[in-house]
Amino acid sequence: MPKLAYLGPQGTFCEAALRILVPGGERLPCANVTAALDAARSGEADGAVVPLENSVEGAITVTLDELAWGEPLLITAELLLPVEFSLLVRPGTEMAHIKRVYTHPAAITQCRNFLARELPDAVVVAAPSTAAAAQEVSMEDSPYDAAIGPAIAGEHYGLHELASSMGDRDDTVTRFVRVSRPGVLPEPTGADRTSLVAFLRDDHPGALLEMLSEFSVRGVNLTRIESRPTGDGIGHYFFHFDAEGHVAEARVGEALSGLHRLSADVRFLGSYPRADRVSPQLRSGTTDPDFSEAADWIARIRSGRV
Amino acid sequence: MPKLAYLGPQGTFCEAALRILVPGGERLPCANVTAALDAARSGEADGAVVPLENSVEGAITVTLDELAWGEPLLITAELLLPVEFSLLVRPGTEMAHIKRVYTHPAAITQCRNFLARELPDAVVVAAPSTAAAAQEVSMEDSPYDAAIGPAIAGEHYGLHELASSMGDRDDTVTRFVRVSRPGVLPEPTGADRTSLVAFLRDDHPGALLEMLSEFSVRGVNLTRIESRPTGDGIGHYFFHFDAEGHVAEARVGEALSGLHRLSADVRFLGSYPRADRVSPQLRSGTTDPDFSEAADWIARIRSGRV
Amino acid sequence: MPKLAYLGPQGTFCEAALRILVPGGERLPCANVTAALDAARSGEADGAVVPLENSVEGAITVTLDELAWGEPLLITAELLLPVEFSLLVRPGTEMAHIKRVYTHPAAITQCRNFLARELPDAVVVAAPSTAAAAQEVSMEDSPYDAAIGPAIAGEHYGLHELASSMGDRDDTVTRFVRVSRPGVLPEPTGADRTSLVAFLRDDHPGALLEMLSEFSVRGVNLTRIESRPTGDGIGHYFFHFDAEGHVAEARVGEALSGLHRLSADVRFLGSYPRADRVSPQLRSGTTDPDFSEAADWIARIRSGRV
Amino acid sequence: MPKLAYLGPQGTFCEAALRILVPGGERLPCANVTAALDAARSGEADGAVVPLENSVEGAITVTLDELAWGEPLLITAELLLPVEFSLLVRPGTEMAHIKRVYTHPAAITQCRNFLARELPDAVVVAAPSTAAAAQEVSMEDSPYDAAIGPAIAGEHYGLHELASSMGDRDDTVTRFVRVSRPGVLPEPTGADRTSLVAFLRDDHPGALLEMLSEFSVRGVNLTRIESRPTGDGIGHYFFHFDAEGHVAEARVGEALSGLHRLSADVRFLGSYPRADRVSPQLRSGTTDPDFSEAADWIARIRSGRV
Repeated sequence: MPKLAYLGPQGTFCEAALRILVPGGERLPCANVTAALDAARSGEADGAVVPLENSVEGAITVTLDELAWGEPLLITAELLLPVEFSLLVRPGTEMAHIKRVYTHPAAITQCRNFLARELPDAVVVAAPSTAAAAQEVSMEDSPYDAAIGPAIAGEHYGLHELASSMGDRDDTVTRFVRVSRPGVLPEPTGADRTSLVAFLRDDHPGALLEMLSEFSVRGVNLTRIESRPTGDGIGHYFFHFDAEGHVAEARVGEALSGLHRLSADVRFLGSYPRADRVSPQLRSGTTDPDFSEAADWIARIRSGRV
Repeated sequence: MPKLAYLGPQGTFCEAALRILVPGGERLPCANVTAALDAARSGEADGAVVPLENSVEGAITVTLDELAWGEPLLITAELLLPVEFSLLVRPGTEMAHIKRVYTHPAAITQCRNFLARELPDAVVVAAPSTAAAAQEVSMEDSPYDAAIGPAIAGEHYGLHELASSMGDRDDTVTRFVRVSRPGVLPEPTGADRTSLVAFLRDDHPGALLEMLSEFSVRGVNLTRIESRPTGDGIGHYFFHFDAEGHVAEARVGEALSGLHRLSADVRFLGSYPRADRVSPQLRSGTTDPDFSEAADWIARIRSGRV
Repeated sequence: MPKLAYLGPQGTFCEAALRILVPGGERLPCANVTAALDAARSGEADGAVVPLENSVEGAITVTLDELAWGEPLLITAELLLPVEFSLLVRPGTEMAHIKRVYTHPAAITQCRNFLARELPDAVVVAAPSTAAAAQEVSMEDSPYDAAIGPAIAGEHYGLHELASSMGDRDDTVTRFVRVSRPGVLPEPTGADRTSLVAFLRDDHPGALLEMLSEFSVRGVNLTRIESRPTGDGIGHYFFHFDAEGHVAEARVGEALSGLHRLSADVRFLGSYPRADRVSPQLRSGTTDPDFSEAADWIARIRSGRV
Repeated sequence: MPKLAYLGPQGTFCEAALRILVPGGERLPCANVTAALDAARSGEADGAVVPLENSVEGAITVTLDELAWGEPLLITAELLLPVEFSLLVRPGTEMAHIKRVYTHPAAITQCRNFLARELPDAVVVAAPSTAAAAQEVSMEDSPYDAAIGPAIAGEHYGLHELASSMGDRDDTVTRFVRVSRPGVLPEPTGADRTSLVAFLRDDHPGALLEMLSEFSVRGVNLTRIESRPTGDGIGHYFFHFDAEGHVAEARVGEALSGLHRLSADVRFLGSYPRADRVSPQLRSGTTDPDFSEAADWIARIRSGRV
């Protein structure tokens, strides 16, 4: 039974993601993303589940930077988890009793309407994480009457769920990824994603355009681009790319090879099934049989059998 | 004398940036970036100074999102401020006395070598900001012996600077911008930058490539690209661009017009002098006289005077 | 009543084209394309009609080079004329009598099936032009029994049309253009074509790609591209372009201006109604109102009225 | 000893080219380009030498079309031959005797200055070819006193060379190619050229731009592009390309494969040493070792050995 590290403490959205991605596994909560990834790197865990981006907050930059700079890890799966906030109280607490609410600032922002409507007079205090808020509220002598956090946090800390789906938007999601030490890649499924990081050889104007052309000319669509600082001063960036397809597919392999030749360095971060199961619309001439047929054609030409 | 809001409390790097950008002005410390920008929007202040990006941490996403979505503001100046950390103590404290250090997590990360070498046995505790850490340490009964923060924080809170330039890298900088309510733009200086935000009309493959082509075909180099989520789910992004040049220049104006025609929406965020005073290398055929000469040529053709 | 020069002698396809393009005009047959264009340049004629390209033979390079290098002329109209060959004989001649056929080599090639089927034993001799062949056959003492040429040649020289539509392909057409001395352009009709010639500034790799990008980024489709030697040695070319649209339209004007800035020289050859009356499918954001709206937007930005 | 067909009659520039390309070979003069190529196709000759383009007149379209549509042949060598015209007379004829000159119209155009200066009163008559003119003048009872043609024509027909290098430009050259039936390709020399023909899959706007991108993204420069009509009506073209490099090189092979996948059809016309011996400036990342290293990298990734 695999043991997976995750961004703790118990009761986080990340734990909820892990329970779905690896239902029967052992779970190792870690203090932060770096610690979770280090557990996977060292072998203390068989892998890790960490957040990569959120549909409202954007990239989780610590995850991006760890995957780019730290000891290599491969993404082997992804999950899109709806961010659903619940109002969590000690058993017996009723709505009218709530004077002080404790939660993470992102939750405060995302539940603004609920708080204004249902708890207009409550004081809302910032906590380091929603799970930590739930843990705090579970103490009998807590100065807080309620926490806002994932339902799973309520279960963990014996809290009662007084309200659910509190968020102003009901479509906020966080994308989590499962990572492992480098090894055999997941099999292509026809609806895959490939993640990578590319460092420019020389930071000339048009460099990003050239990078994107390596993908577009082979008919590989990009689903995400993030620039991150290299640390060498303002104006120096490297790039995270998510592309449609699996590196085992010819068009993706050739695009990555092209990017590799163009770049100072490319780090492959994994090819894995897409959570949304969407298969790409392949442009004519970019399927594996098309590449194979073209390779045969060139081989015939080179050998003089035109 | 102008009054400028900034990311407080007193003693932040942001205050240091403001003192350089607007030396004699009045200063209004605000609790967070949104509050500082709102002070500028409401007229409570004549403008604001806020951080936009850091050469190690990357974009300050709250600033990006406020400029993209909030009531419009224009960037009118920028500053690159070296991030220099000092070890700040109550007068009389010596190195050997320091058992507990208080500072922001980013400072912990960036001063890792100093701490390991000079204070290997000290406990280091995370604070909400470096200025807040300095303020806390200035209390006589503080449980902390030292703060790590900007020298300016030491001055504010009457602390002694026991060490300076503590960072592992001596080239870390933060880029701050001065913003104002929309109005007359700064004059072109020949070494300017233009910031803007663009929203895709339809999120098709190749859309970013098309956007970049609008710049490259007019010889306008981009110095920064950030993707940010639109909030409409994973995979939906809009883009922040920094381009070389001033919107008053023909090539920049035509590129922005092209982007505007291509996009669902483009928000202009300002044209202002570059902090580094670097003038762009203009490609042949892209100067203002080149555009003017071409416009005359087309006018002659259209009027039948070939 | 206008007087138009054309590629003679009387009875050419070019005369047929002229009769359609300028029905009531006076006609001046000229010995070759250069002479016809020179008649227009000198004022001896009010314009000229000459062939530009043929759907089987390709470009008429003498016309391309005259328009590129000679005293400037503007194309003001075009016509697509089906190339239909007739078997022309002196009255009284019957099929069985035909032993010797006289015509231009292009007609020999294009009527190969007819000749093999109907006149398998006839000797076919090459003539300088189909009209000249008809003229020769019209002589009582001609050694030839039949000419192959346009029906109009038969009318001119009093010949009988023994067969028509003799060509192997029934869809061969020649594109003729009417040219005039520079002056007021034809009004835009919504289905126009613009012709031009561009000379590279420096003949670097990728130069043609850059030229094409000036069109594509403004959504202007090209319908024809011809490379021609500059005369400065193998490997040095200039380019003829036909683009969809009229120079009075914003997207075409901006594309031409961009090409002008990029190139050593651009010669405008005219904007005129398309013979096929096909209106271009305009890409979103490239109509005149789109350009106008974007220009207003930039003007507001530049004046500080964001 | 190989037998090579060429564009006759004896004494043409084409024969001069053949004598340089295949010094000791047997020579078979043919009536036209098609006949010369057919001799190579049928095995009557071991190959053929034909003109491909001229630095003043442009492409020899019959050669382009034969290579594109006829039974396949491969270009195995090229030659740039200066076009030098000589004034050829029967022995005993002096300058003052020359009243009537016979030559091909292209020679008339290119020797205009000489004729105006040295033979202002001579009548100049058009001949079907310069070699045919020399042959005619060699007859004792010829109505012509002089021919203009290549020196080699004078040798063949026993004429005296009264003047040489008569052309107005001294840098006019014709590019000749040697073609053979498909077979083993010439070895790469580091300074090679690759010729091919590509037919669009669907004739959409931007199709040529896409084709050019297949080359440019792999750093393969094009040295010649010719559009030719497909025969299916005005506006329908296919393309001849000459590219730098040999198909045995990785960047050329991948570019051709990409073009093949993109196109309805691509016909390879040969890889052969450049006449000018110019080696391409390879962009960083496009050498064979770069491709090989990238292929290894992808192979490691695919096998899980990151």
